Amino acid sequence: MDLPVALDAMGGDFAPRETVAGALLARKAGVAVVLVGDEARLREELAAQGGELPVVHAADVIGMHDQATEVRRRRQASINVAMRLVKEGEAGAAVSMGHSGATMAAALFTLGRVPGIERPAILAEIPSRAPSGRVHLIDAGANADVRPQHLVQFANMGAAYAKRMSGVQRARVGLLSIGEEPGKGNQLVLETHPLLADSELDFVGNVEGRDVLADAADVVVTDGFTGNVVLKLAEGEARILFGWIKEALSGSLKAKLGALLVKDALRELAARMDPAEYGAMPLLGVRGPAFIGHGASDRRAVMNALLRARRMAASGLVEALGAAPRP
Amino acid sequence: MDLPVALDAMGGDFAPRETVAGALLARKAGVAVVLVGDEARLREELAAQGGELPVVHAADVIGMHDQATEVRRRRQASINVAMRLVKEGEAGAAVSMGHSGATMAAALFTLGRVPGIERPAILAEIPSRAPSGRVHLIDAGANADVRPQHLVQFANMGAAYAKRMSGVQRARVGLLSIGEEPGKGNQLVLETHPLLADSELDFVGNVEGRDVLADAADVVVTDGFTGNVVLKLAEGEARILFGWIKEALSGSLKAKLGALLVKDALRELAARMDPAEYGAMPLLGVRGPAFIGHGASDRRAVMNALLRARRMAASGLVEALGAAPRP
Repeated sequence: MDLPVALDAMGGDFAPRETVAGALLARKAGVAVVLVGDEARLREELAAQGGELPVVHAADVIGMHDQATEVRRRRQASINVAMRLVKEGEAGAAVSMGHSGATMAAALFTLGRVPGIERPAILAEIPSRAPSGRVHLIDAGANADVRPQHLVQFANMGAAYAKRMSGVQRARVGLLSIGEEPGKGNQLVLETHPLLADSELDFVGNVEGRDVLADAADVVVTDGFTGNVVLKLAEGEARILFGWIKEALSGSLKAKLGALLVKDALRELAARMDPAEYGAMPLLGVRGPAFIGHGASDRRAVMNALLRARRMAASGLVEALGAAPRP
Repeated sequence: MDLPVALDAMGGDFAPRETVAGALLARKAGVAVVLVGDEARLREELAAQGGELPVVHAADVIGMHDQATEVRRRRQASINVAMRLVKEGEAGAAVSMGHSGATMAAALFTLGRVPGIERPAILAEIPSRAPSGRVHLIDAGANADVRPQHLVQFANMGAAYAKRMSGVQRARVGLLSIGEEPGKGNQLVLETHPLLADSELDFVGNVEGRDVLADAADVVVTDGFTGNVVLKLAEGEARILFGWIKEALSGSLKAKLGALLVKDALRELAARMDPAEYGAMPLLGVRGPAFIGHGASDRRAVMNALLRARRMAASGLVEALGAAPRP
């Protein structure tokens, strides 16, 4: 029987309304969810939305303006309670749309690291021309400054994720750089290249910014600074381009008429590019599935995050990364 | 009287056909151009295209697979001859679509640096929602590893360029990072933030990947590794999105009909996103306007590069950056 997914129902800009609504949608789609947060508040929200879900009470919540390090002393914060449910085998995964730094800190502090992984990293899936329809970008923001061996660990985690979660049997791993030749890059990339070339991975060498969304690699490895810039630029550019397209299609009567005919096709494409489609990003390298979502997540993002969290819990990925199964 | 722009006519994947064709187009648009390269070959190409332009002979050319450092000993290479024309006051600017590293090395070696600038940097203009229609990204690839004071120098050069070339009187300068708060970023960003805050620039703080194409800043400052990834991702994503749109608009009969009506509007937008629109990127911080173009440049890119080079020569930007005018 599946363990439920623990949702930090107090985290996110629109919590608990959207978290509860997303959880109810996920429940309808067959995912067992347990809400974590202020019990009275959550029961009230459930009643207002006419739904039922189990609730685990958490008296405290880390706000967006708190320091991530607060998770160490505020043990009753909802994000800590959610992680403890995973650690204690009461939940199969944890999801939060709240403070990203606090979620990472809580995961690291409560779940601990997988042996052999010095630095857990965030994996982002971005729509691309790769056969699986997406590129797996790691690290998308957990570690701003890293060393070469960390990038090798990221590469291994990214390939394992692509295999178990996206069905990519043998992921092509590319190292993000500023030229295809092994001699191109910053110091970090120059030192990492030979390590990846010597690894058991299907290393395809350096990939450039223009290759990220092309069919050059299934996994793109980079430091968390560059990766976070890439992720947010990719999302931001799609939004801005679709905005410009909308403007262009209201420029003339002819274009306006055409727009009526193409809008369904374009809406579908825009939805595919919407980050809410993926819901949340896993922090890989901790001993349990832990997902970090956008603060601005709506119910659809929350639902998709819960669906992915359940899939990752069932995939055995954490164990495949080297963590012994929990007793 | 305007000095001509020296074009390394042997540089680029489609040289000399496209370089000569682009130079003839620029000549028609009123730009004085001098072709630099193998004289016999260039005269032949000019005759084939039915045009006339002055030619300065250069016996050698740095190929795409040569080392950039070769410019030091191959003094007769076309890129070196072009830079010498600028240095000696025979040309107002130099443009090359050839080996980027060699172009940078030749500019640095022959022209030298502007006082106060330790590291020349590449400035890229990318279409954005800023009032000038573009964001000025610096460094777009010249320096993979830099120190905080270099970023401050980049910021000053970017603001001066935005003012003289794009008419932005007081450029808002943003520091590319992974969070808006001053405490977010990698070590380089954390150390650079207070330096920019203390500068005379209109520093708007950290900007994130999602802000680059939004109206958050006129100048975005970053190291050459991140900047090059950003530039190439922005270009690559636009290309891939337009490809997906094309596919989406041929999916159904309805969409196909609509596509006929919207294609002009979309084509205009795609053209605006095309890097050929800007032609080439200036290397700022050397004592003379030097432009580096895509190897794959076609005649339109060459023409646009020559137009921009002429504008930069006339703008007094190099002198404004602190170089004394050449005698």
